[in-house]
Amino acid sequence: MTIRVYLSGEIHTDWREQIIKGASDLDVHFASPVTDHDASDDCGVSIMGAETEKFWHDNKGAKLNAIRTRKGIADADIVVVRFGEKYKQWNAAFDAGYAAALGKSLVIMHGADHQHALKEVDAAALAVTETPEQVIQILRYVQDGTLPRERAGYD
Amino acid sequence: MTIRVYLSGEIHTDWREQIIKGASDLDVHFASPVTDHDASDDCGVSIMGAETEKFWHDNKGAKLNAIRTRKGIADADIVVVRFGEKYKQWNAAFDAGYAAALGKSLVIMHGADHQHALKEVDAAALAVTETPEQVIQILRYVQDGTLPRERAGYD
Amino acid sequence: MTIRVYLSGEIHTDWREQIIKGASDLDVHFASPVTDHDASDDCGVSIMGAETEKFWHDNKGAKLNAIRTRKGIADADIVVVRFGEKYKQWNAAFDAGYAAALGKSLVIMHGADHQHALKEVDAAALAVTETPEQVIQILRYVQDGTLPRERAGYD
Amino acid sequence: MTIRVYLSGEIHTDWREQIIKGASDLDVHFASPVTDHDASDDCGVSIMGAETEKFWHDNKGAKLNAIRTRKGIADADIVVVRFGEKYKQWNAAFDAGYAAALGKSLVIMHGADHQHALKEVDAAALAVTETPEQVIQILRYVQDGTLPRERAGYD
Amino acid sequence: MTIRVYLSGEIHTDWREQIIKGASDLDVHFASPVTDHDASDDCGVSIMGAETEKFWHDNKGAKLNAIRTRKGIADADIVVVRFGEKYKQWNAAFDAGYAAALGKSLVIMHGADHQHALKEVDAAALAVTETPEQVIQILRYVQDGTLPRERAGYD
Amino acid sequence: MTIRVYLSGEIHTDWREQIIKGASDLDVHFASPVTDHDASDDCGVSIMGAETEKFWHDNKGAKLNAIRTRKGIADADIVVVRFGEKYKQWNAAFDAGYAAALGKSLVIMHGADHQHALKEVDAAALAVTETPEQVIQILRYVQDGTLPRERAGYD
Amino acid sequence: MTIRVYLSGEIHTDWREQIIKGASDLDVHFASPVTDHDASDDCGVSIMGAETEKFWHDNKGAKLNAIRTRKGIADADIVVVRFGEKYKQWNAAFDAGYAAALGKSLVIMHGADHQHALKEVDAAALAVTETPEQVIQILRYVQDGTLPRERAGYD
Amino acid sequence: MTIRVYLSGEIHTDWREQIIKGASDLDVHFASPVTDHDASDDCGVSIMGAETEKFWHDNKGAKLNAIRTRKGIADADIVVVRFGEKYKQWNAAFDAGYAAALGKSLVIMHGADHQHALKEVDAAALAVTETPEQVIQILRYVQDGTLPRERAGYD
Repeated sequence: MTIRVYLSGEIHTDWREQIIKGASDLDVHFASPVTDHDASDDCGVSIMGAETEKFWHDNKGAKLNAIRTRKGIADADIVVVRFGEKYKQWNAAFDAGYAAALGKSLVIMHGADHQHALKEVDAAALAVTETPEQVIQILRYVQDGTLPRERAGYD
Repeated sequence: MTIRVYLSGEIHTDWREQIIKGASDLDVHFASPVTDHDASDDCGVSIMGAETEKFWHDNKGAKLNAIRTRKGIADADIVVVRFGEKYKQWNAAFDAGYAAALGKSLVIMHGADHQHALKEVDAAALAVTETPEQVIQILRYVQDGTLPRERAGYD
Repeated sequence: MTIRVYLSGEIHTDWREQIIKGASDLDVHFASPVTDHDASDDCGVSIMGAETEKFWHDNKGAKLNAIRTRKGIADADIVVVRFGEKYKQWNAAFDAGYAAALGKSLVIMHGADHQHALKEVDAAALAVTETPEQVIQILRYVQDGTLPRERAGYD
Repeated sequence: MTIRVYLSGEIHTDWREQIIKGASDLDVHFASPVTDHDASDDCGVSIMGAETEKFWHDNKGAKLNAIRTRKGIADADIVVVRFGEKYKQWNAAFDAGYAAALGKSLVIMHGADHQHALKEVDAAALAVTETPEQVIQILRYVQDGTLPRERAGYD
Repeated sequence: MTIRVYLSGEIHTDWREQIIKGASDLDVHFASPVTDHDASDDCGVSIMGAETEKFWHDNKGAKLNAIRTRKGIADADIVVVRFGEKYKQWNAAFDAGYAAALGKSLVIMHGADHQHALKEVDAAALAVTETPEQVIQILRYVQDGTLPRERAGYD
Repeated sequence: MTIRVYLSGEIHTDWREQIIKGASDLDVHFASPVTDHDASDDCGVSIMGAETEKFWHDNKGAKLNAIRTRKGIADADIVVVRFGEKYKQWNAAFDAGYAAALGKSLVIMHGADHQHALKEVDAAALAVTETPEQVIQILRYVQDGTLPRERAGYD
Repeated sequence: MTIRVYLSGEIHTDWREQIIKGASDLDVHFASPVTDHDASDDCGVSIMGAETEKFWHDNKGAKLNAIRTRKGIADADIVVVRFGEKYKQWNAAFDAGYAAALGKSLVIMHGADHQHALKEVDAAALAVTETPEQVIQILRYVQDGTLPRERAGYD
Repeated sequence: MTIRVYLSGEIHTDWREQIIKGASDLDVHFASPVTDHDASDDCGVSIMGAETEKFWHDNKGAKLNAIRTRKGIADADIVVVRFGEKYKQWNAAFDAGYAAALGKSLVIMHGADHQHALKEVDAAALAVTETPEQVIQILRYVQDGTLPRERAGYD
């Protein structure tokens, strides 16, 4: 059972690389948005010509990036969305909503201080995590049923 | 042609009331989330019992609110999503993504300072506005083809 | 905003009547399966002719009941599924799964002793309740945002 | 023609192994839930942290298991659901309903004593069986048209 | 609960009128194909111009009739398909397949002598009947749970 | 049976008015794009602010018009698309393709000189006509089975 | 571009073998129902136990065959349905309707004497043929654009 | 991440070959309509027999071509539609509308003189281009995030 995972959200830390490396022995295919911030911002005008208005500069780029994002989400079994410490990250929340409406399994990652602000997003998720290690453990469990050693049984 | 509109997002100003009032002569039905902030936060535990963990307190409430939100979006022809000056507003972006994936016509409202951060959301929209008056004009135009007096023709 | 609700599951107590009565001032339309146990069991052979095998006797009836059940679920915004104290009630769990796959908002009702056995069903729900009164409160909140008096706020 | 089969339901006997072994010469891919009972119960808290409330302990686990279950059903051509002699098995009936709503071909397995209680589930199935051997014969017939030797012709 | 019913198939007897009359006290809306045989055959050329080839004469008419048929089936909760004693009636079987793929509840009517030839169609139905009276009884039971007086209970 | 019709395409003659008037005794609801050419061209900038680039001037307007067009097509049972004598009319062909993909019943109107260029569009239609009178006759026939007096029977 | 084709309908001549052989150099995958008439009739009771009623004997078999048929149609790009000289062949017309509702490309095969009776089925098809050779030519053209030597140009 | 691209529209220049060659180092699969103009016009009658009416000659061919076109669009992640300098090209606009309704990512190609006439089509696109080189750059960026050397950054 090959699992396809789309890694959406924060692009300023190496969380994607950690997950991809940690799951390298699993039968999981990963897809991501373009994470080069400058390329992502300027792709539209770089290919289709400059704009004088910032709005249209951004609009051209965001639409071009949407070609990749929508395919990534549409092809995925699981969409992992990470909210980092900074920035608005509305595109991350937008991706989460988009994935939820398509019935994708949502895994959300964020620190404790974002808990209240993300409650609607978390409520649509099948798992809420804080670390890449937890996402790796989830992928491992979903694929082959293996749990990490020290386990927190109920009684 | 009755138009059904869902008004999502910011709940701290009276933009919904302005739109509803301004469009009162049109054949438009409006739906909204519960905009009483306290009720929205506490609805889950209020009905289904208190929680000791804040996460589950919020989770219960967010899921209960989702019953209303999802029906509102599912029934809508047009989803208007307003991003205010403050707060994370990830639920607004989540609603926008959810509505986009369902093929709803998106109308986004926000001030100029949020332009870059909302570029992915704007790129999925059929109209990007700043004021309730513009949304009223859009609804009026969509319904009966009437434009405001002073018009900005191209040539 | 008219809300359409399908009341699935246990047919031996008057929980449906309690909900319908308690929500009589709301703009909610209710649908239910046929709750006359004998009619539900014998409807197939009663109309389409007797069977010598119990399996086909039941099969004819279950299919005929499915005409009503599927329309009820398909038309609903919210599907409430109640698990009573006794019986297997696999049809209730089947309805819950069917509704979940169609993206309906699920509200589950059951007593505390069924908690562990129903964990997968509860996990697909937007609300888990114990009493008809709670379902009425949910419908009231979803429709007009009103909560019961004594409220359990978080802090 | 590769056939993809999801084996849902009872986890206390080796019926899955019997089917997989008996169909090993066919072009059939099998998927299953995690059948290690303890892992399945504790997976959520094991990865995402302990809960003080049993309800949330179970909720975390059930949602995590749903990632695997939903992919298994979504990818399947045929969903086989077995009801054993004991336990409530509401998750099995939930899976059956979920699969039925997605238009999957349902094959149900159960003993004669569950016949009446499972009549609604059976009525949604394309085949109702009692033994793993019958499921193997069905897969063989669906794939290459071969029937078992001793055949019960009508005339 | 308004039930919408499409009455497909045989057009040489008054079975539609019998059903519509017998169900006149129920909240059921009926739709049907054009049952005037000559009009149905010639409608295409009558409006859009004559054809020299019989194939295109028929093609024009069949497509025009499809506008009505497809709306009738798409809008229906229940599709009743009657196979009469004579004629090929491939359009009736086509409608049944079309309705089945859309997930409509199928009720089939035919005499005993067509049983074997219609086994695939019957296998997709939720009820197989012989008379208009049985269809009326089904509609009555689906709507209000009432069964005919003399009932064939199992034990 | 209320029939909902969307009238797409050419906006320089009064064909819509002819059809609406000719079908005024039928239970047909009509919807149309905004047919005021100037309003349609300038609506975007008129409400949301002027653009210096013609491309974005047009883009803003076309997206705003799409809110109305998509609702009109989505709500329709039948989409009538008329190609006039002049202009590119790519939006008409776009609407036809959009409607075809949604499974709407397509009725195409055009003169004989466009026959070859429109062959792919005609091939997706259930009726190809030349005049408003023919469309009225089609609507009348689809609704109540009545054909015009002088009829072109086959033999 | 691999093309997947389902060959439905008449099972008494070798038309399937002719098509499969004639298209053996193309990248086309074929699927078919079980064409062993006796196996197809008795498969249900052979695996799941004898029935005393012919109706249920047939019902068990028809449902089991539906597992294969529905997968074959669901996986197909093109569904070819052949109507032979004899028999009712309602299952062929049912398959055609089922495939049409799923938006599959329909290719119909039949002799001239069935033309009028099959007009509704033909009207839903993208090609109407008489011989296996024509179906092979269609598959060849769809795949690589090659037409047979002697061609009937218009001018 | 394999990307599937359908190249629709103008068939008189070698733009398809330019794109396919320029993207030959990428993991992109291309599909196209039959671009042999004569074969495309005459395919229907060539295989299924001559017609005396030009309308039906064209109709047969257009439907046969639709088998390939619809599969090409249905399988695609991205649909590129090119409008050339000449001809009506309504089939290109039809394909664009068809692809848009299916939620495909649309990339439109045309010269500046068609800008106003194509504004509705452009408004549905995620990228509007003029040259094959731009499409190649888009495919390269979508697949591996690489942009052309000289880049037009905003500030």
